[in-house]
Amino acid sequence: MRLVIVGTGLIGGSFALAARQCALFDQLLGVEPNAARARRAEELGLVDEVVAEVPADADAVLLASPSHTIAPWVLRLAEHPGVVFDAASVKGAVVAQIRASRPLPPRFVPCHPLAGSDRSGPQAADADLYRGHVVVLTPEPETDPAALEQVAGWWGVVGARVQHMTAQRHDEVLARTSHLPHLLAFAYLHCISDGDLSYAAGGFRDFTRIGGADADMWSPIFGLNRQAVLAALDGFEGELSRLRRLLEGGADAELSAFIEAAAARRGKFSHGG
Amino acid sequence: MRLVIVGTGLIGGSFALAARQCALFDQLLGVEPNAARARRAEELGLVDEVVAEVPADADAVLLASPSHTIAPWVLRLAEHPGVVFDAASVKGAVVAQIRASRPLPPRFVPCHPLAGSDRSGPQAADADLYRGHVVVLTPEPETDPAALEQVAGWWGVVGARVQHMTAQRHDEVLARTSHLPHLLAFAYLHCISDGDLSYAAGGFRDFTRIGGADADMWSPIFGLNRQAVLAALDGFEGELSRLRRLLEGGADAELSAFIEAAAARRGKFSHGG
Repeated sequence: MRLVIVGTGLIGGSFALAARQCALFDQLLGVEPNAARARRAEELGLVDEVVAEVPADADAVLLASPSHTIAPWVLRLAEHPGVVFDAASVKGAVVAQIRASRPLPPRFVPCHPLAGSDRSGPQAADADLYRGHVVVLTPEPETDPAALEQVAGWWGVVGARVQHMTAQRHDEVLARTSHLPHLLAFAYLHCISDGDLSYAAGGFRDFTRIGGADADMWSPIFGLNRQAVLAALDGFEGELSRLRRLLEGGADAELSAFIEAAAARRGKFSHGG
Repeated sequence: MRLVIVGTGLIGGSFALAARQCALFDQLLGVEPNAARARRAEELGLVDEVVAEVPADADAVLLASPSHTIAPWVLRLAEHPGVVFDAASVKGAVVAQIRASRPLPPRFVPCHPLAGSDRSGPQAADADLYRGHVVVLTPEPETDPAALEQVAGWWGVVGARVQHMTAQRHDEVLARTSHLPHLLAFAYLHCISDGDLSYAAGGFRDFTRIGGADADMWSPIFGLNRQAVLAALDGFEGELSRLRRLLEGGADAELSAFIEAAAARRGKFSHGG
């Protein structure tokens, strides 16, 4: 069995390390347009070899490149006999982009592992990145059940918990749980001067960690999931206006209750894992 | 030398542990209205004893209770011969509240250690909490230089880096670096449903950590620093509107540049410590 990983950064490299540990495939190949990253992925042994093209006899292809490159890759591999799966943070728009050109290839299985890091690149690859994390699969009516089962099995072997969802629900949930906080962290960091940074402490460090993310990855996510991200932003602005009114009006008891409800919601996350 | 710590939670308890390690005082007493917390502080050996009132012969009093209790405590201790210092996150309003009743007692030294934790209470106390962290001192014209020097010395011994600032600048900087992110995290958590929490990962965890903070502590901070917090919020809403327009307008290059500038600002924090 031969797996090709397109994009040998954190996401692809971590899958490679985990797959190797579990002996999921006999050979791991990489496709990586960035020469320095390709060299590093080979040096680190993430893949056996970096190749220029996906070989015609590959059994599986993991697309671990930025969200806006997924549809072009699926289209390019539309006649490829192997199973193609991705790891992008946006699902609906990718499928829509493909369908705009041709029927959805049944052996493409849309996936999104809910795992990441503030680090990136081949050197950030971690064999345990997916262990215990949810991987959302968003199969479409055209998706081949055998391909779906095979991909779900691979994620399970590397330690992830597989859940199925519609692409639309995925995109709405992720807009709230991931895309919106990134948006807020980016906007917030624009309010902070260099002088302020000397007086930033642990709360700032944690709150802004996601703000250090890669623009090449995040700009396409916002663009592709625009509608759901704007809906999540509408919801946030409503809550922020409510909080502002409590603060402006000196409504101390209501302000305290607002904070308590927020902290209680956070508490449910801590205890739920 | 006898130190009394009013409020034996994370802030007071950590100062107690550090002071004990450095043998800064001969005796540590606590004043703690919450009976369970008082018992816990004694059991953990944070203080030698919890007492009902600040003894008349105490050499120093650390007010480590919520922000809105500082001015009442300083007024109550106005004629006390010891040095009184605090650790509250708001400085200007506290001094204004005191001055509304009487001239500022010269032996009151306003302090704010920029260190915290998402944990709270006596059990969260940590002898190293202040090590390497900035403590901002905001002396007023009335502040006794000898008292100021003594308090700065104590913070230095427990490992903190002492910096002086006006109360106004402190409140403006902290509104941006600490109070605003708490406000945003509280509002954000109101957008998240229980169902969403199953799909929240590491980014969410870090971004919302400060959202689990104590309402009894944070409601008064927002109330007392209302003006600066609203100004910081105005700034944030301006940046968020700018980001929304880039997203709505499909201005991909500008969106990418906005994210890159944010990530660069975050990078300066990481490297700056």
